[in-house]
Amino acid sequence: MAGRGVSGPQAGEEMLELMRELYPLCRSLTGDGVRETLRIVDGVVPLQVTEVPTGTPIFDWTVPREWNIADAWIADPDGRRIVDFRESNLHVVGYSTPVRERMTGAALRERLHTHDEHPEWIPARTAYWAETWGFCVTGVQLEQIRPETEYEVCIDSRLTDGHLTYAEAVIEGRTQEEILLSTYVCHPSLCNDNLSGIVVLAFVGRALASLTPRYTYRLLFSPGTVGPLAWLSRNADRLDRVKHGLVVACVGDRGPITYKRSRRGSADVDQAGAHVLRHSRPTAAVEDWVPWGGDERQFCSPGFDLPVGALTRSAHGVFPEYHSSADNFDVISAESLADSFDAVLEIAAVLERNARCRSLSPFGEPQLGRRGLYSAISAGVPRAEEGFQRAILWVLSLADGTATLLDIAERAQVPFTTVAEAADALVDAGLLETTPT
Amino acid sequence: MAGRGVSGPQAGEEMLELMRELYPLCRSLTGDGVRETLRIVDGVVPLQVTEVPTGTPIFDWTVPREWNIADAWIADPDGRRIVDFRESNLHVVGYSTPVRERMTGAALRERLHTHDEHPEWIPARTAYWAETWGFCVTGVQLEQIRPETEYEVCIDSRLTDGHLTYAEAVIEGRTQEEILLSTYVCHPSLCNDNLSGIVVLAFVGRALASLTPRYTYRLLFSPGTVGPLAWLSRNADRLDRVKHGLVVACVGDRGPITYKRSRRGSADVDQAGAHVLRHSRPTAAVEDWVPWGGDERQFCSPGFDLPVGALTRSAHGVFPEYHSSADNFDVISAESLADSFDAVLEIAAVLERNARCRSLSPFGEPQLGRRGLYSAISAGVPRAEEGFQRAILWVLSLADGTATLLDIAERAQVPFTTVAEAADALVDAGLLETTPT
Amino acid sequence: MAGRGVSGPQAGEEMLELMRELYPLCRSLTGDGVRETLRIVDGVVPLQVTEVPTGTPIFDWTVPREWNIADAWIADPDGRRIVDFRESNLHVVGYSTPVRERMTGAALRERLHTHDEHPEWIPARTAYWAETWGFCVTGVQLEQIRPETEYEVCIDSRLTDGHLTYAEAVIEGRTQEEILLSTYVCHPSLCNDNLSGIVVLAFVGRALASLTPRYTYRLLFSPGTVGPLAWLSRNADRLDRVKHGLVVACVGDRGPITYKRSRRGSADVDQAGAHVLRHSRPTAAVEDWVPWGGDERQFCSPGFDLPVGALTRSAHGVFPEYHSSADNFDVISAESLADSFDAVLEIAAVLERNARCRSLSPFGEPQLGRRGLYSAISAGVPRAEEGFQRAILWVLSLADGTATLLDIAERAQVPFTTVAEAADALVDAGLLETTPT
Repeated sequence: MAGRGVSGPQAGEEMLELMRELYPLCRSLTGDGVRETLRIVDGVVPLQVTEVPTGTPIFDWTVPREWNIADAWIADPDGRRIVDFRESNLHVVGYSTPVRERMTGAALRERLHTHDEHPEWIPARTAYWAETWGFCVTGVQLEQIRPETEYEVCIDSRLTDGHLTYAEAVIEGRTQEEILLSTYVCHPSLCNDNLSGIVVLAFVGRALASLTPRYTYRLLFSPGTVGPLAWLSRNADRLDRVKHGLVVACVGDRGPITYKRSRRGSADVDQAGAHVLRHSRPTAAVEDWVPWGGDERQFCSPGFDLPVGALTRSAHGVFPEYHSSADNFDVISAESLADSFDAVLEIAAVLERNARCRSLSPFGEPQLGRRGLYSAISAGVPRAEEGFQRAILWVLSLADGTATLLDIAERAQVPFTTVAEAADALVDAGLLETTPT
Repeated sequence: MAGRGVSGPQAGEEMLELMRELYPLCRSLTGDGVRETLRIVDGVVPLQVTEVPTGTPIFDWTVPREWNIADAWIADPDGRRIVDFRESNLHVVGYSTPVRERMTGAALRERLHTHDEHPEWIPARTAYWAETWGFCVTGVQLEQIRPETEYEVCIDSRLTDGHLTYAEAVIEGRTQEEILLSTYVCHPSLCNDNLSGIVVLAFVGRALASLTPRYTYRLLFSPGTVGPLAWLSRNADRLDRVKHGLVVACVGDRGPITYKRSRRGSADVDQAGAHVLRHSRPTAAVEDWVPWGGDERQFCSPGFDLPVGALTRSAHGVFPEYHSSADNFDVISAESLADSFDAVLEIAAVLERNARCRSLSPFGEPQLGRRGLYSAISAGVPRAEEGFQRAILWVLSLADGTATLLDIAERAQVPFTTVAEAADALVDAGLLETTPT
Repeated sequence: MAGRGVSGPQAGEEMLELMRELYPLCRSLTGDGVRETLRIVDGVVPLQVTEVPTGTPIFDWTVPREWNIADAWIADPDGRRIVDFRESNLHVVGYSTPVRERMTGAALRERLHTHDEHPEWIPARTAYWAETWGFCVTGVQLEQIRPETEYEVCIDSRLTDGHLTYAEAVIEGRTQEEILLSTYVCHPSLCNDNLSGIVVLAFVGRALASLTPRYTYRLLFSPGTVGPLAWLSRNADRLDRVKHGLVVACVGDRGPITYKRSRRGSADVDQAGAHVLRHSRPTAAVEDWVPWGGDERQFCSPGFDLPVGALTRSAHGVFPEYHSSADNFDVISAESLADSFDAVLEIAAVLERNARCRSLSPFGEPQLGRRGLYSAISAGVPRAEEGFQRAILWVLSLADGTATLLDIAERAQVPFTTVAEAADALVDAGLLETTPT
């Protein structure tokens, strides 16, 4: 499996390029923006697309009508567009019903949303489950609207029976046990939240496809909340295959990379996520479960309780540009995307390689010297800088058949890779037996 | 149930007034001072009085003879009272045997007790289980006693077969499960220790009597150590009804309110006591079990091991005026009494309201919007100031049928009341089922 | 059992004297240096010597040929010894094969070892399991060797079929349950590592022999690694007798005394070792298991997993003089030796005296006054300085039949001895029953 820094200097730039292609599309909970996004991602990693018809019950939800939009604007009495969907698809409240009418500025203002803290930004708003419409505007635009003046308003949208669309990429492993990687595809022109998740997962999929991993990897690209629930409802009888999972989103900004534990709090993926981040990235954060954020909320809900953590940089709602037009290319960096890509693969690599260890020479220390695992002329205790030598002793000391490599790395407070390499050497020397977890 | 600040501005003053009425009475382990105290408390909350005859065995103890005292003094050769029981009932060592004799100052000094650190205070001393007598005096009084001079000494006390007296107030709840609230009534003219406990518990009883609580509340007013043991010995076959308990004493001084955990350390009342104090009172202290203090020592002894914590302000022996004439009205405040009263009711309110939660829509998040529990137009993740919204998500996330509201509040690190209100809204919406703990 | 400070002012000096006698001997993994060492120790505490023949399989090891050495030197062309075994037995790499030849300085330098950080010291090196030879020299000596000059080199050693030698001292106790105390005897002229362990254990044995302890004590003096493994292999069917164990080594330097937990981490000896050190020695260290150090590595290997901790001062490899000629009498002190001796006996005393406690009067506090365990005239709560009084209450409060004296001491945060004395008083008063752990 890939390790740290596999991405290389080009990977971040390639992910940025893919983001630029995806940015203009008007994604929403449903509709052609999602389909076009998945079509482009399919060029990076092959996808299987699923269409779920409007009206399908999904646990407490029902698949809504499909929403598509061609154009939208507010025009002043001179016919000039003072708010224009073509300039930013954030101008329209997602799922707005169609409208074409004249109205006073006073009445129109009831339909306008501005950003609380940053009036210079267009806020991002949705109304998936309410039969309503609205525009999102800057403070300057809002001030232009005079109460007595009459404006022409157009939202050329359609709400029709159709489908909710999601897609999976499956990388077959040597076993049917799965690692689930999930991100959401329902946000319009917003970079960190969540084009970043889409492009990182697409490239992770491409990288995994070149390997023959132990686990089968299932990458889920779906609209938030209802998308994962649709997938869960259609895969209820095979969820026991999901051994580990990770929601990947908001992974492009310059904030420190963050692992959020699953609701369980002590799943293997929690141990691996925390270990990788703490040992390789001094500024990384490891946070406890909270029931808001991304789609981990669905996978970890008490009825499923799957071992699914979340990888972000600045988490949902924490970075100021969240859900606004300022969540654009200024917020993200190629380095952050590449580092997030690396982190996903590093966590996966730990899960791939993790194994229970049993010493085949458990009665005292075996004679390491004659196996080339200890210097012929001894100066005594291995020093701190002799990390491999120490790791050899740690593995032998703890290899009682129950401890995993990750357990050993945690107790020894050394990187997993050092412990794994020591274990490999011991297996080669016939001193250790490992069993995949 | 009552919540924070229920006391109102008058409550503290009313409690102070009751203390002034009770202060002059000469209470002891037994006797008319206790009976008169209970008679007055009965005017606030109706009491059932129990009289346990002298000689009754109580576990390792036996009810002693009843002690009553009419007067006591030391007179100089001119017949002037230089130490006078009428000025302070602390002047006589509790349970002193009767005496009327002349003796030299040198002999008399063997019978005199002064305060180690503060000679200007009269110490409070008792000798319940020793056949002896003595006086407690100030340093100035001690110096007045000249070795060669002869003094007349009188203790007009009686030790006779009689009774040990305790009383209960029972507020019937909707169930027979009980919350036991206990305080001791054996201290003479001492304010914080423990007229404060008596008046706070009396007013708590009055407040509870106006409600129909879930639990039955049993308020025990008894002489320390032997009183609770007498009650325990007479109720041994119904102790399983006691689900939670709290000893309330030393609750009038200006020190920070303090919850002391039961011997178990993790009883529900420990969780509730710690939660209430930490979330509502920044200076509050939560302390681990120690086997000294108040009557929690009896309830928590290994043979009973009841889930009984203790609420104090400055705990027994910690405030300098402890067991001396300086433990008077200068030490206490109406605000402290009212705050302690509130704290008892707040802890009870948490126990009353606590319940196990089971989501009725556990597969993913239910659709909150159509139930009016989520705004129609979404701006994304609920912010920290949207505490109710977050609490809704916490309850749904953790409501697996085992977690209680208090567990959820602790994990979410939010006040119990916020979580309880969120749960109520979810029950109303048909999304949650709660079962009282 | 002996308590703190039993050693007295003479003990440290006596141990130093024994060290001076042992210092010149050339100990190694096998050979007459070990035998002579054991012969001298036998004068302090009677030993049973075991000789294990060359070729005997010991788990993953085989007893090697026996090594003895008569002399060794490097001579310059003038025949002057410029490196001389008679000056320091560290000059020869342990287990060097015999050699007598002339060689150039260039070739000779390949066989020379110096100290990395301190060229003025002679390093200590061994090659037990490699067929090789070498000298250890100072930097000045190394510079003397000129590449083109021819030197005469002699190592007058013998590697012959013989034995590995170890010895036990057994102090019979009242039970067959054992406390194992182990140290290693394979280091040549090195004071802290490990003549200190040998002399401390010898004097501990002498002190124990004057008692009739509860446990049988087995003191093991053996060459490191293979010695304990030889003992383990010959006693495999009686290891269940070993209830507690302690490896004692590097206990003479001026560093803070250090207890290292067993691999289990929470064995009784771990609790006792940590307790004794923390309560009696403010600078003491308690450290978690690491799989390097002394012979605890063998006893705690996963196949045995014995409850064996380690007592050191500055641990192996931590003090700069480790494995060099500077580990001499300058490094150690009589005070440190005496303190280490005391610490071993104090830890043993805790294990000896530890017992489960059951209150015989568990229903409330028993009446302590009439048993002389509480003052007749009460001033209330016992103060911090009334430690014995508080310990009485702690024991009674926690004596539920499962808690041990050590558990109680830990929860009460008071010294074990105080709790043990309180328990004795309660047993005398008929209030407590104790069962040895």
